[in-house]
Amino acid sequence: MTVRNDVKVVDVTLRDGGLCNQFQFDDAFVRDLYETNLKCGVDYMEFGYKASRRLFKESEFGKWKFCKEEDLRRIVGENDTGLKISVMADVGRCDFREDFLPRQESVIDLVRVACYIHQIPAALEMIEYLHALGYETSCNIMAITQANLNQTEEALALLAASPVDVIYLVDSYGSLYPENAGALAKSYLAAAEPAGKQVGFHGHNNQNLAFANTIETMSYGVSFLDASAMGMGRGAGNCAMELLLGFLKNPRYQLYDLLTFIERDMLPLKAQGVVWGYDLQYLFTGQLNRHPREAMNFTAEKRQDYCEFYKSLLDNF
Amino acid sequence: MTVRNDVKVVDVTLRDGGLCNQFQFDDAFVRDLYETNLKCGVDYMEFGYKASRRLFKESEFGKWKFCKEEDLRRIVGENDTGLKISVMADVGRCDFREDFLPRQESVIDLVRVACYIHQIPAALEMIEYLHALGYETSCNIMAITQANLNQTEEALALLAASPVDVIYLVDSYGSLYPENAGALAKSYLAAAEPAGKQVGFHGHNNQNLAFANTIETMSYGVSFLDASAMGMGRGAGNCAMELLLGFLKNPRYQLYDLLTFIERDMLPLKAQGVVWGYDLQYLFTGQLNRHPREAMNFTAEKRQDYCEFYKSLLDNF
Repeated sequence: MTVRNDVKVVDVTLRDGGLCNQFQFDDAFVRDLYETNLKCGVDYMEFGYKASRRLFKESEFGKWKFCKEEDLRRIVGENDTGLKISVMADVGRCDFREDFLPRQESVIDLVRVACYIHQIPAALEMIEYLHALGYETSCNIMAITQANLNQTEEALALLAASPVDVIYLVDSYGSLYPENAGALAKSYLAAAEPAGKQVGFHGHNNQNLAFANTIETMSYGVSFLDASAMGMGRGAGNCAMELLLGFLKNPRYQLYDLLTFIERDMLPLKAQGVVWGYDLQYLFTGQLNRHPREAMNFTAEKRQDYCEFYKSLLDNF
Repeated sequence: MTVRNDVKVVDVTLRDGGLCNQFQFDDAFVRDLYETNLKCGVDYMEFGYKASRRLFKESEFGKWKFCKEEDLRRIVGENDTGLKISVMADVGRCDFREDFLPRQESVIDLVRVACYIHQIPAALEMIEYLHALGYETSCNIMAITQANLNQTEEALALLAASPVDVIYLVDSYGSLYPENAGALAKSYLAAAEPAGKQVGFHGHNNQNLAFANTIETMSYGVSFLDASAMGMGRGAGNCAMELLLGFLKNPRYQLYDLLTFIERDMLPLKAQGVVWGYDLQYLFTGQLNRHPREAMNFTAEKRQDYCEFYKSLLDNF
């Protein structure tokens, strides 16, 4: 019956969902999602990536792969609201020294630095730089289920000593069961809390566990919770926002306006053929703790020969 | 790394799945599923209901609503295998005194007696009768999330004192979160274990938690685990067998043959328009702890006006 006031709900529909449609969301969709998040009490809205325009051609992607200041402002103005704005920047795939303004000149509040565990030194450099610009920062260590325990402990210790605000447990492959997710969350919290930092969870739904893992890790003290409308996100997708808002007891969060958004904006997206969500091919890569790329190809080719696909995964271990 | 040798996997594809297609499975499908369960190491296969032929017309349903001995034997012969045969009988909707042979004359091993909590006295009468005929029995108390704690405790005490072998925790409305499912499982186990009985779990996937709740309750000692191919079952469906077999560490369980069954038999069923599985309308009834019947109507009418539907549920509380 009590509420957890430390919880922050982070909408990642545009960012992780953008991986399903090359970030081709039109402004009406983005504005509608922004208004929806405001009404639903969502705490952060992630608009997309700050990707390098040297590495990626602007003509090949929607604008939310780059999240230029003018594009953000066209949607949010000065964003005089309680909803904070987030962008993600991948280590090695962004030009962070060129592409970020000082925070007081930007509508961006939070920069989430995504990296693999071997990139922690580069992530720390970015975090220090972005922190000095005035941003809130998080470090999202991806594919944590492929890191060993020593690496993870060392990374957590380095992050605890850094200026980062939030450390994210990221189940990129959707291979964590709740008990493993809970155990990892405890180790993240043990490193983060004494340093005054919060811990976040970002799940994938390969085994239908994105929501279950989110509320499991929350029960141990994880407070930044990623979710997206209808679970839109790469491959099997993420924790569905409608599941999470329905679960949270805090009356600050409201489900109804999200439903109107889903009906008006998400169903047409699905009808256009944008594909994401749980299916057997993602279950296989999740169970095998592997990157979903082969499963994404299987989906794109509209294949249904699940047995052949499963055998091919076992061949390539 | 250890295995739980007390775990029994129960395939409910025909029985709960039959609620999606009026039990219209042809013999080739049923035989293929039987062979699949044998190869996958499944412990029990539930073929359907023993429904009253006075209450239900045989012409309106497939034969697995009635599970006559000759129909079972046409598939399984004498069933000289390690796979046990189960049927379900609903309190008040079966003619148990007429329709069950003594066990030594039947291929049925387990009769699962399904009831609502106010029907426990009638369920106990059936359990005693069927136990005297020689069957293994379970009591599946449906819609437990609408029973109060005193009722539940009293029902568990009565069942503990009965000859029943297994007491099932049944989340008919898919409204349990893992922490609630775990707490209920503990109270079931506390009543059942001192009496030498086992506890089972049967989930529904309204909130994408059927699998998560199954493995959560298993972690406390629940040992009879219901699942179905592709989660086929009423409304949002059940725990998917492919998720469960992938999770269980016991090498007795094998995933691969299930995949061949899914490809050969389940995909055509879906292609024919048989519908089940997670969708928003089921999420709503799950969150609101209600029977899915309105959501099933919404699905049958191919509606997508989720907001209107949600409001209508709030109106009819």
